[in-house]
Amino acid sequence: MGGNTFGKMFKITTFGESHGEAVGVVVDGVPAGLPLTEEDIQKDLDKRRPGKSEVETSREEKDQVKILSGVFEGKTVGTPILMLVKNKDVKSEKYEKRKTKPRPGHADLTYKLKYGHVDYRGGGRSSGRETVGRVAAGAIAKKILESEGIEVLSHVVRAAGVELEERPSIEDIRKVSENNSMRCSDPEVAEKMKEKVLEASEEGDSTGGIIEVLGLNIPAGLGEPVFDKLDAEITKALMSLGAVKGVEIGLGFEAAERKGSEVNDSFEFEENRVVSETNNAGGILGGISTGDSIIAKMAVKPTSSISKTQKTVDLESDEEVELELEGRFDPNICPRVAPVAEAMLALTLADFMLRSGKINPDKFEGAD
Amino acid sequence: MGGNTFGKMFKITTFGESHGEAVGVVVDGVPAGLPLTEEDIQKDLDKRRPGKSEVETSREEKDQVKILSGVFEGKTVGTPILMLVKNKDVKSEKYEKRKTKPRPGHADLTYKLKYGHVDYRGGGRSSGRETVGRVAAGAIAKKILESEGIEVLSHVVRAAGVELEERPSIEDIRKVSENNSMRCSDPEVAEKMKEKVLEASEEGDSTGGIIEVLGLNIPAGLGEPVFDKLDAEITKALMSLGAVKGVEIGLGFEAAERKGSEVNDSFEFEENRVVSETNNAGGILGGISTGDSIIAKMAVKPTSSISKTQKTVDLESDEEVELELEGRFDPNICPRVAPVAEAMLALTLADFMLRSGKINPDKFEGAD
Amino acid sequence: MGGNTFGKMFKITTFGESHGEAVGVVVDGVPAGLPLTEEDIQKDLDKRRPGKSEVETSREEKDQVKILSGVFEGKTVGTPILMLVKNKDVKSEKYEKRKTKPRPGHADLTYKLKYGHVDYRGGGRSSGRETVGRVAAGAIAKKILESEGIEVLSHVVRAAGVELEERPSIEDIRKVSENNSMRCSDPEVAEKMKEKVLEASEEGDSTGGIIEVLGLNIPAGLGEPVFDKLDAEITKALMSLGAVKGVEIGLGFEAAERKGSEVNDSFEFEENRVVSETNNAGGILGGISTGDSIIAKMAVKPTSSISKTQKTVDLESDEEVELELEGRFDPNICPRVAPVAEAMLALTLADFMLRSGKINPDKFEGAD
Amino acid sequence: MGGNTFGKMFKITTFGESHGEAVGVVVDGVPAGLPLTEEDIQKDLDKRRPGKSEVETSREEKDQVKILSGVFEGKTVGTPILMLVKNKDVKSEKYEKRKTKPRPGHADLTYKLKYGHVDYRGGGRSSGRETVGRVAAGAIAKKILESEGIEVLSHVVRAAGVELEERPSIEDIRKVSENNSMRCSDPEVAEKMKEKVLEASEEGDSTGGIIEVLGLNIPAGLGEPVFDKLDAEITKALMSLGAVKGVEIGLGFEAAERKGSEVNDSFEFEENRVVSETNNAGGILGGISTGDSIIAKMAVKPTSSISKTQKTVDLESDEEVELELEGRFDPNICPRVAPVAEAMLALTLADFMLRSGKINPDKFEGAD
Repeated sequence: MGGNTFGKMFKITTFGESHGEAVGVVVDGVPAGLPLTEEDIQKDLDKRRPGKSEVETSREEKDQVKILSGVFEGKTVGTPILMLVKNKDVKSEKYEKRKTKPRPGHADLTYKLKYGHVDYRGGGRSSGRETVGRVAAGAIAKKILESEGIEVLSHVVRAAGVELEERPSIEDIRKVSENNSMRCSDPEVAEKMKEKVLEASEEGDSTGGIIEVLGLNIPAGLGEPVFDKLDAEITKALMSLGAVKGVEIGLGFEAAERKGSEVNDSFEFEENRVVSETNNAGGILGGISTGDSIIAKMAVKPTSSISKTQKTVDLESDEEVELELEGRFDPNICPRVAPVAEAMLALTLADFMLRSGKINPDKFEGAD
Repeated sequence: MGGNTFGKMFKITTFGESHGEAVGVVVDGVPAGLPLTEEDIQKDLDKRRPGKSEVETSREEKDQVKILSGVFEGKTVGTPILMLVKNKDVKSEKYEKRKTKPRPGHADLTYKLKYGHVDYRGGGRSSGRETVGRVAAGAIAKKILESEGIEVLSHVVRAAGVELEERPSIEDIRKVSENNSMRCSDPEVAEKMKEKVLEASEEGDSTGGIIEVLGLNIPAGLGEPVFDKLDAEITKALMSLGAVKGVEIGLGFEAAERKGSEVNDSFEFEENRVVSETNNAGGILGGISTGDSIIAKMAVKPTSSISKTQKTVDLESDEEVELELEGRFDPNICPRVAPVAEAMLALTLADFMLRSGKINPDKFEGAD
Repeated sequence: MGGNTFGKMFKITTFGESHGEAVGVVVDGVPAGLPLTEEDIQKDLDKRRPGKSEVETSREEKDQVKILSGVFEGKTVGTPILMLVKNKDVKSEKYEKRKTKPRPGHADLTYKLKYGHVDYRGGGRSSGRETVGRVAAGAIAKKILESEGIEVLSHVVRAAGVELEERPSIEDIRKVSENNSMRCSDPEVAEKMKEKVLEASEEGDSTGGIIEVLGLNIPAGLGEPVFDKLDAEITKALMSLGAVKGVEIGLGFEAAERKGSEVNDSFEFEENRVVSETNNAGGILGGISTGDSIIAKMAVKPTSSISKTQKTVDLESDEEVELELEGRFDPNICPRVAPVAEAMLALTLADFMLRSGKINPDKFEGAD
Repeated sequence: MGGNTFGKMFKITTFGESHGEAVGVVVDGVPAGLPLTEEDIQKDLDKRRPGKSEVETSREEKDQVKILSGVFEGKTVGTPILMLVKNKDVKSEKYEKRKTKPRPGHADLTYKLKYGHVDYRGGGRSSGRETVGRVAAGAIAKKILESEGIEVLSHVVRAAGVELEERPSIEDIRKVSENNSMRCSDPEVAEKMKEKVLEASEEGDSTGGIIEVLGLNIPAGLGEPVFDKLDAEITKALMSLGAVKGVEIGLGFEAAERKGSEVNDSFEFEENRVVSETNNAGGILGGISTGDSIIAKMAVKPTSSISKTQKTVDLESDEEVELELEGRFDPNICPRVAPVAEAMLALTLADFMLRSGKINPDKFEGAD
């Protein structure tokens, strides 16, 4: 019970089911005096909004966020910030029909087994719609990080078997969401990804991929060993996203294949600061940030909802049945997961900045 | 500050530095009435003890655990259990010499940057020696799990580039620690691993690998979405281990390469229970256990300590220097990480069994 | 930062400022399958609503609660429950005028010192209006407790120097809110209280009093020593209410005056259960419930807002000034604090029922 | 389960039973670089040690503390600090005889009902001996507070019906432990207290009293409304002590008797700081420190163990029996509770200093 809160000092609790009245988040621990408007939040919510291209489902969400507490005269007051997005466009009939038939790859079965009484409409609480609250809270986290010069980015580095081969520039990654609907920094690679994605989609199937998130201009010293290590918390944050099945930091699984002399980052001085030419560690040693960029990758499984006929069970009739899902589905979820992953990294970093004393909560008061 | 506690209901706090007086753990949340002796703990500690073969460092640790509280007349009393292991064989001279020269790949630099005043001897708190407390606590977690028929296993599936190709039987995995020093279920593969490990070691280098942990006979319903999902917490638990750079659940990164129809596990009935022939999900859907076996893999980087000369900095003289580490090092850390990873999975599962109400804390009282 | 959450298993986070858009609460940890409607909540909110009598301020609040998540087809689904009450009747002009002049006895000064940027309107976050969320969450806690036969009550035992001298029957305490606006179980005593309250009010002054809360039919074994003792958590819960300056359990301060032989409750058997004729302990020994009724009392200071001229400072002009508060104030806050105190006891008990394994979260699923 | 941890940033977990191997504490969250020796801890442990006068039990404890982790070369390293005190002088025979007969006023009954299997020897976990860990951790908290000029004091203001009538000077309170065994600031009053205490003791009875704790030179802004208010947490901290049945802040219960105009502290300026001539609020408004001294009082019930014959039950034979306790008992526990209460206030304040960002964890590093 009660696993809907993330963070220790910058704490968020999300709420809401896909076809309920609303989704949203309450954020506790935001320092007072931080300038904050609904536009700041809306900007990030718009990035995760679907319906903008053929690789995404066409549901018209129009997520308009309302800030209902914690902000006064355009600045935070140090109290909990409630952000609410009303649910619209909720046609639940198709879910009603198949409510006793758990969809393979989805949480339908486990929610039924765990909770007994389930809001099955649109996936209920297990729907990607829950991430609205994460992104809204992430937008606040980013504002706090920005005040310290920290930047958080995300991009799709592999989708439907197509990989981004050359390491893109930070500038290119910054522009991904404008570049193309695959959120891949190289428009040509993005085009190939899209082709493969649509190819599978036409067969009634789906594809997955790999997303990279980055934290730039990170101070050394974030992370609280031995359990609340920075990499451990980032990994938890990313793994808490629906379709993610694997997370790696820096070289990740590739490190397992190399020798120590090929993995250890040598230290040198650069303007009195200790740096490494390579960053195989992904910016974290011993669970604490080195001061180098934080780099994490996550494996996104292919969208569970597919048009192809699948085998499942009917929990009411106790029969094994065939399931044909109606409707349109995201043929590849990577471009939609990326901004949420970015939000999760921002939330984790903001929490550690406060927890490790790198940001004093009194910092913004002077703005008063 | 304060990241040394793991778990919410079954809570452990480890303490101790490599060359300090002692290492150990205090465990809070163990139900009363559970039979527990020092032998129960010692058995698991002996598994992680090094010095038994040529792929491991030869330090003679002889870790004798003492239970100093929480147990009376051979059974727990529901109060915190303190388990202590005194440190011996601690020669700190070689650390003294290089204390201002952070070892590449180690936590030396980040601990210095974060804490300023550091116990550098033997790696201090960042040493693998800290895991003594984890394994001791894990032994208690396993006893609780066993009372519900749950079993936790670990084995090395890849090391120094050599992979276990065939899926071993559970019976074979159960016997890994007796089979060979690589903790690989197939003695022939283990032999090849060892060969490659020693080959690199002779060059003054080290190798990494991949460990798999399994949870068997898991009840459906463990995990607390949306943040404290079972996979998210397992991943955090495993990533909190020193050399781990990546974690995956079920198919993991491979899932990103396949199509939805190849990844989704179909449901069918088996004796009134919903099961899947495949277990690509690794026993977790929507962050909640399905009832199938839990399967996680982790990437272990090659041991950071190598004999080869490396480049680092001298924080005192502000010069870039060459570092030659003295002594003997684990040429491959996988066999030593495996039992700790097993303990971490046990700790996570025991915590969720209590938190999700699957074990009533009054359960063992009747034994009185 | 981040002190707006109460509870470990049954966790509530309140939000909202007095004159902001809304106040409310998100409740995480409610088991699935519990029947719950807005009427269940509204009933308790109506009890705390002011404007019903001459001892209370006349603000017309009309608090209409909306449940926006966590409930489907009249039953909880195990996910966070968001309850929202829009703020109305918010005239902020008078607060604007005196915003730089902290009111004695209020939180104006400390909020300014702590947060810098403050929503001063109507007391902002420190207003009693925040307790709407507590009462709404408390209504859910009570439903859970009722399912185990546990009842929670509150009544005013002393106000404006007038004391309830005879111990009332439980039946009389149950009826307090219908009996009189002082929430005192004896209508005659209530009349005298009211007289004294109004007498002080006519002088432009205010009065305080003492509230008693009771938990009935409590199972033995609630409470988690040595820090999360039942009495320690109840005391924290009650002391977190705005005007409370003291809390006592059972005999409380009176126990300090007596001898051990007069305070210790003797044990005897009653139908195989160990009971005590007296209940000086207030139902708690060693921080754990005995099975007897839980009894706690709290001291409520006189309402800080009074008509009488007071001395304060002007933080803008740096001058010492006289303050004359406009408007009508609760001449005695006890009758309004009582239902909130009742809610806090219910929240504490529900949390411990889940935490101590006395209620299995699967309990309500069968209702499906 | 699991209630043995106190604090969020400065976190302590105590362990140990009265007649087990050891008692102690692990402290997580102590900033690195703080000078700390065993003598620092021993000094405070000696204050709580019994056997020094006729108003205390004569058990010769000789509590020698050992620091086993977290300190290197005389300074903390930012990792958990384990402090251990071995138990000696443990004769358990008398407890054996009466183990099925719960002592009135003690936790014997509730521990049995909650845990089933209990270490009954010497009161086990519910013994005052557990507070050794609190005092040891409190000594560290005080060192942190001292570095900011904050001082924490305690004294007995009422015992066995005898009250300290005049408000003593801070200087007099500082000297209480040297002055007399009652820890009362006025030696004459102390003498009268002692007389009354011994009088009751000779009758085989015990007495209680009231302790005051003070925090001096407190910065404004400590406390995290709306639940983790400073007064709420202090109250919880004090109520978690065995014999405490009531806690009040500032005027406390007396406030309930007065009028608003007599309770509200007027504000004025003193050297650009807002101050009050009176401190009826006890240094806390709205759950946040004002900058004035923090003042809390607690009611200590008479020692539960008395020589007089008492009625209880035999849980084995199911008979009502008479109980005659053997041995010597503290006739009045106040002087022994005072230093523990002082430790609890120090722990609460140190936690809030870190949590509210008033102490930066990097502060002590410079000492390196």
